[in-house]
Amino acid sequence: MKKNILKGNDLISIDQLDKNIILSIFKTADKIKKIKPKKALNILKGKVVALLFFEPSTRTFSSHCVAVKRLGGQTIEHQNPMQTSSVVKGETIEDMIKIMEQYSDAIVIRHPVAGTAQICAKTAGIPIVNAGDGIGEHPTQALLDMYTIYEKFKTLDGIKGLMVGDLLNGRTIHSLLKGLSFFKNSIIYLLSPKVLRLSKKELDEFCRRGIKLIEINNLNDIPPDLHFWYWTRVQKERFSDKNEYEKLKLSFILSKDLVDRKAGKKTLLMHPLPRVGEIKTEVDNDPRAVYLTTQAKNGMYVRMALLKMILE
Amino acid sequence: MKKNILKGNDLISIDQLDKNIILSIFKTADKIKKIKPKKALNILKGKVVALLFFEPSTRTFSSHCVAVKRLGGQTIEHQNPMQTSSVVKGETIEDMIKIMEQYSDAIVIRHPVAGTAQICAKTAGIPIVNAGDGIGEHPTQALLDMYTIYEKFKTLDGIKGLMVGDLLNGRTIHSLLKGLSFFKNSIIYLLSPKVLRLSKKELDEFCRRGIKLIEINNLNDIPPDLHFWYWTRVQKERFSDKNEYEKLKLSFILSKDLVDRKAGKKTLLMHPLPRVGEIKTEVDNDPRAVYLTTQAKNGMYVRMALLKMILE
Amino acid sequence: MKKNILKGNDLISIDQLDKNIILSIFKTADKIKKIKPKKALNILKGKVVALLFFEPSTRTFSSHCVAVKRLGGQTIEHQNPMQTSSVVKGETIEDMIKIMEQYSDAIVIRHPVAGTAQICAKTAGIPIVNAGDGIGEHPTQALLDMYTIYEKFKTLDGIKGLMVGDLLNGRTIHSLLKGLSFFKNSIIYLLSPKVLRLSKKELDEFCRRGIKLIEINNLNDIPPDLHFWYWTRVQKERFSDKNEYEKLKLSFILSKDLVDRKAGKKTLLMHPLPRVGEIKTEVDNDPRAVYLTTQAKNGMYVRMALLKMILE
Repeated sequence: MKKNILKGNDLISIDQLDKNIILSIFKTADKIKKIKPKKALNILKGKVVALLFFEPSTRTFSSHCVAVKRLGGQTIEHQNPMQTSSVVKGETIEDMIKIMEQYSDAIVIRHPVAGTAQICAKTAGIPIVNAGDGIGEHPTQALLDMYTIYEKFKTLDGIKGLMVGDLLNGRTIHSLLKGLSFFKNSIIYLLSPKVLRLSKKELDEFCRRGIKLIEINNLNDIPPDLHFWYWTRVQKERFSDKNEYEKLKLSFILSKDLVDRKAGKKTLLMHPLPRVGEIKTEVDNDPRAVYLTTQAKNGMYVRMALLKMILE
Repeated sequence: MKKNILKGNDLISIDQLDKNIILSIFKTADKIKKIKPKKALNILKGKVVALLFFEPSTRTFSSHCVAVKRLGGQTIEHQNPMQTSSVVKGETIEDMIKIMEQYSDAIVIRHPVAGTAQICAKTAGIPIVNAGDGIGEHPTQALLDMYTIYEKFKTLDGIKGLMVGDLLNGRTIHSLLKGLSFFKNSIIYLLSPKVLRLSKKELDEFCRRGIKLIEINNLNDIPPDLHFWYWTRVQKERFSDKNEYEKLKLSFILSKDLVDRKAGKKTLLMHPLPRVGEIKTEVDNDPRAVYLTTQAKNGMYVRMALLKMILE
Repeated sequence: MKKNILKGNDLISIDQLDKNIILSIFKTADKIKKIKPKKALNILKGKVVALLFFEPSTRTFSSHCVAVKRLGGQTIEHQNPMQTSSVVKGETIEDMIKIMEQYSDAIVIRHPVAGTAQICAKTAGIPIVNAGDGIGEHPTQALLDMYTIYEKFKTLDGIKGLMVGDLLNGRTIHSLLKGLSFFKNSIIYLLSPKVLRLSKKELDEFCRRGIKLIEINNLNDIPPDLHFWYWTRVQKERFSDKNEYEKLKLSFILSKDLVDRKAGKKTLLMHPLPRVGEIKTEVDNDPRAVYLTTQAKNGMYVRMALLKMILE
């Protein structure tokens, strides 16, 4: 039997992983999907996971919460610690983490400041899972996105996809590109307003990692038969100039017409959510649209798999 | 054995129910009251219920929360999603609901806007329970109120009661009147400030449904030997003019003296709570006062019964 | 077998306890430390504890939450009831408590106003645990502090310690002094800014209870070989004049240099946390520093012991 190298470890960046670990997470997720709900309750029985969410979240909070509970574990939940914890009295994140370490078996943290998850990992003697740190990384999102593609096409080699929207600030974009770079022959088309393009530094880095990145300028340039389209929201909270945001937020809209004209028969229509207008609701019932269904549900299964592997 | 028509269904309005369903809920509640705590934990084992509360709530949140947990289920809790969820980023309620559907087996929602629960029910493929939507409905409250009367008098036919306070905006009033209209020969006396009376439209509707409604003008007009008095709070949050609220809020006060003068020996003294002065605390220890005890506890049992029937 | 006099009772003040009860709590904590996580889940199976936190808290909320859950119980959690409960509609604490009594088997409450926990205990028919009420008491904190000292030195008689910081407002200080007064021959050195000294009334009271209190004026006066140093934060939230706070907050700082010069080989370095600068992080890795480790973890075990004894 192979060693589970996630056991007892942090998950801060997708960079810690490699092709084999990623595939073993996907296999674990496949298995967990098939376990009966009552039986799954034995997997984390007696374990406690602290959920520290310093930023608003529906999906990431709820899916981690439910992942713990569907495995029979328990949670300590701080959904708004800036208001409800001793952080209001001036406590440092390091002290808070040390204390939560005494009570729990692992900590899932979301924080607005990039690098915070890494600081927590250095501080704590128990596993830390990064659930998004500012413009930093969001590794569990990348894993669920990759799992959704993998589940459909049974491989992550030779994947051709499209990424649209806020490529500069979108941490899910960065984590997903890193994740895909562990596999062979990816070609990713990039479409965004000029000021929200991937930085030159990142373009160079992902090319060096072996992904072929091709910038396109408008929706008409989308090539046919891509494996996935990955739409993203322009992130209002990262803009200091709200007029600039208003101008850019709906630069590229995913509509039924666009799907009819440009999507392949099997093209997955993905979005990390929340969306704020950049995908029309008329697309929701298209069988290729997975953003509200499979992609979200896979978020639960991938997090169940990760927590199982980290805590078992 | 009779079919459980609640199974897999939404509960949005008391209008979906009928006399038989209501009585079967009460029978289920009777049984659940008698189950030992440890044994009840098997009923929803492996199930997850999402609690989405977009409005402040003590009772309704806590009683649904505890109903799930005393049946062995787990919860995803959002007590303040306007601050802690992606709704702050502009996400629609429909998207939030679709996502929660992926993680959970049922959703309990409270929302300030009437009609929201119905929108959620249309959106979701899992059962939605309306825990109050603005001036709309609050069907689980009506059920617990009716169960409290039923438990005492062993019937809901021929019930004579009094409703006092904010009859215009009080959603518990509307849901309870609808619920009683499934039974025969109810006579309900109505007492409220003029501007907070039931609307003509509602008066007509409830009469058409077979309830005899009699408006009275002051506390001295309360007839003797009613089955219940149902006091309600004047709802500050529905007033735009706070002076108007201040003038009206304590128009009718339930005092020990009033109970002594006007209540029957078995009259149940009820209130959906919270109260803000309209029942004096001197009444609390009267054996007929059930608002802080039986009525609240029945809220837990009725919600346990409902969740069991919906999810089993 | 001895009677468990905590069973079914409130814990509002350390004054309710005595030497024997305290030692029996410690024995229960010793045992709980050794139970395997899965086995502990049977102890509160089927029980529900309501956590009502009207003030921000990391440690006290999380440790009570995890204490319930590690014993297999369930929680109803209100971390911010001023915003999320009917208290915003004007509900009294008494009404809220009566309602929570219907749903739960015990209530843990933190509140900014001294005396609130006592009011709740009078109101409720189920056990109330005081998790801190303003400048009042914080008995579970005192118990975990005493347990940490007891565990190290196997006795609480003849203990010599130092208390530093906000001795006027620090409720942990008051509760700990009361707790130590049940044991023999304590000598406690007190060091604080003049305006934050123990009041004359309290000085007199603790002397009457048999503790020898010695006020010192600066760090150089700390005698050698004390059993513990108990540092505390100057409590910003109790100051109306924030300049005054700024002047006083770092009057006495626990540094590595001070530890090297003045601490004994076994001196426990303690703090109830949160700290905001009064202990330098350079002290954290000293083996005598227990504030981020043993002391916090003992908070969980002592609360598990208490809840077990109260609810079993």
